[in-house]
Amino acid sequence: MLFEKTMSTTQIPQKIIKLLLIKSGGRCQYKGCNISLYQDLITKRFFNKAYLAHIVADSPGGPRGDSVRSSLLAKDLSNIMLLCDTHHRLIDKIEVDEHPESLLLGMKKEQEERIDRITAINPNSQSHIVTYKANVGEHTPVLTYETLVEFLLPEHYPAQSNTIDLGLTDSPIRDKDEEFWTTEMKVLEENFNQRLKHSIRQQSIKHISLFAFAPMPLLIKLGVLLNDIQNVEVHQPIRNPKTWNLTTKSIKTTHKVKKPKSVNSSVALNISLSATIKNERITKILSDDCSIYTLTIDKPFNDYLQSKSQLQDFSVVIRQLFNEIKSNYTTQTELHVFPAMPIAIAIELGRVWMPKADMPLIIYDQNKTFDGFNKTIKIC
Amino acid sequence: MLFEKTMSTTQIPQKIIKLLLIKSGGRCQYKGCNISLYQDLITKRFFNKAYLAHIVADSPGGPRGDSVRSSLLAKDLSNIMLLCDTHHRLIDKIEVDEHPESLLLGMKKEQEERIDRITAINPNSQSHIVTYKANVGEHTPVLTYETLVEFLLPEHYPAQSNTIDLGLTDSPIRDKDEEFWTTEMKVLEENFNQRLKHSIRQQSIKHISLFAFAPMPLLIKLGVLLNDIQNVEVHQPIRNPKTWNLTTKSIKTTHKVKKPKSVNSSVALNISLSATIKNERITKILSDDCSIYTLTIDKPFNDYLQSKSQLQDFSVVIRQLFNEIKSNYTTQTELHVFPAMPIAIAIELGRVWMPKADMPLIIYDQNKTFDGFNKTIKIC
Repeated sequence: MLFEKTMSTTQIPQKIIKLLLIKSGGRCQYKGCNISLYQDLITKRFFNKAYLAHIVADSPGGPRGDSVRSSLLAKDLSNIMLLCDTHHRLIDKIEVDEHPESLLLGMKKEQEERIDRITAINPNSQSHIVTYKANVGEHTPVLTYETLVEFLLPEHYPAQSNTIDLGLTDSPIRDKDEEFWTTEMKVLEENFNQRLKHSIRQQSIKHISLFAFAPMPLLIKLGVLLNDIQNVEVHQPIRNPKTWNLTTKSIKTTHKVKKPKSVNSSVALNISLSATIKNERITKILSDDCSIYTLTIDKPFNDYLQSKSQLQDFSVVIRQLFNEIKSNYTTQTELHVFPAMPIAIAIELGRVWMPKADMPLIIYDQNKTFDGFNKTIKIC
Repeated sequence: MLFEKTMSTTQIPQKIIKLLLIKSGGRCQYKGCNISLYQDLITKRFFNKAYLAHIVADSPGGPRGDSVRSSLLAKDLSNIMLLCDTHHRLIDKIEVDEHPESLLLGMKKEQEERIDRITAINPNSQSHIVTYKANVGEHTPVLTYETLVEFLLPEHYPAQSNTIDLGLTDSPIRDKDEEFWTTEMKVLEENFNQRLKHSIRQQSIKHISLFAFAPMPLLIKLGVLLNDIQNVEVHQPIRNPKTWNLTTKSIKTTHKVKKPKSVNSSVALNISLSATIKNERITKILSDDCSIYTLTIDKPFNDYLQSKSQLQDFSVVIRQLFNEIKSNYTTQTELHVFPAMPIAIAIELGRVWMPKADMPLIIYDQNKTFDGFNKTIKIC
């Protein structure tokens, strides 16, 4: 039988015992002890070794007993402590006088409050699905709650059964149209301010699962807006295998940085990750008199990003590269960015760019309509 | 009777039920739920509302039932989950197929490991969560009890279920505004005195877990206020991997100190850790006639700080550097500090600065709005 060794003769109801087990966490309630009373820490076997100790004894002659209160409190949860053998002996046999009722009540209260407070700590698993799409060439992707929600599980649950959209619903303007960039920038900033910023400050949004599909410049801008917001999981559309989830398995990609031979008046950053951008395509726009830094990998290709570790590695490399370029110029010099990179990488680039300290970025976009790169937006 | 509403007919032994109550902490084991099953959170009354749910049903025709394993596992602790009414219905009636055995086993294991891990935390290791935030650029970070408490575990547990906040709740004043620094300094000092100083002296606060997000000058001031208080764990927001915890693994970072060629009338300290600050940006403000000491590392970058050992190393280096600079000047000479460093490092700098013995510090803040560094506060 459980608890057979309790020193009292009172039959304590199972209901009371169960509540005490939960409130105590099955651990000794003597101040500072906390030993597990349902597992042998040596053999790891689970069995009960708890004692039910009366604070006011259940008989007037027992420890802290009282002619009236002993019988009243005999089956009262507030009068029973869960203790290990050692501390049961201590309070009931060895040092009875040193353990008055008030001391034990204090210990019990403090322990139960602690167990309640810490078991209530629940890793937040609610996430808000945020989407951002803008026309890429002739393609308009589909990003709906139904198609995306599966990519939150099992780490997160959707906090609400719809998405928070930062883009235009169905814009007729294409990225070759002149007004495209100004319109989209305005829409993105306003939607961000209205639909996200306030909720984040109010802390009603605690975690964001981000799904985006847009031209590089707008993705970078999106990253800038999300800059310091801690809990954002940036999803990446992967072609093979088809998914929106980067793997947690570590994949090593060596980033290579090529530096220009001289510090010229204008400076460009060639990001050749999903494809290779030839420097001639940059000098064609900025003239030969520009310094070009290049960030690339072995065999650039559009589906190389598969793992969160690759995203982290990029983050470190681009941060160091921003610092290095800045150390050769001033914080006012414009850095011309020519990007060929996956979606999540573009967003990450925006997130690591520091508004107070970093050089302004002029972002170019590859578009065949213009026979090459086209100057689009400024990040500053 | 307890557990009368379980859908099965198996009589589960009381011994098994008691172990499950302890292992689950009396909380719903469905991932993300964690609701207390022995207390009504509205009326605060204690009573049982837990369901015992079989993972593999106790009859072959039930949810996840099996002709052989159903009877074998009917009374097995490893096959029974403690659930609330909602999630019991969900897994047994509404979405049976979506809840296969392996998913439920995973939830049960994760929940029981969490409860065991947190109830095992030494009862003396309680800590108060102190937050400090002030606007950095356009971003206002989120620092709530819910988002931070997990970073205390497993070394500490929260002493109370709320945070002690030293900053303004939602200030409209930005760090480019003129009144920003005086307002924030006043708020920080007053809140520190009112909300912390007394409790620390009274020893009702024994350990502080500090989470801060603010411009460098205010973080240094915060460090100065915490100067003498021994038990403060300074947390650092790390981008990759995303956490507020510095690792206990030792990481070696070599700090490099560059000394000026001559002792001129004014003296500056260039701290290039999270980014490189060019000396021209300092002489632009202080004139060419100033001596500049530089403290830097290989490849400065904003996420270099990952380990407590790096923080300790910095502490030693900056202490020695303060002494050296002071030996060439007087304790009345103002030291102009130009900082680019991680949050925890800024706080540490403030903590090692000795109010009685060290030179007064004039702290500058990088802000592109002012085309470079901006003089902010004086520490003396």
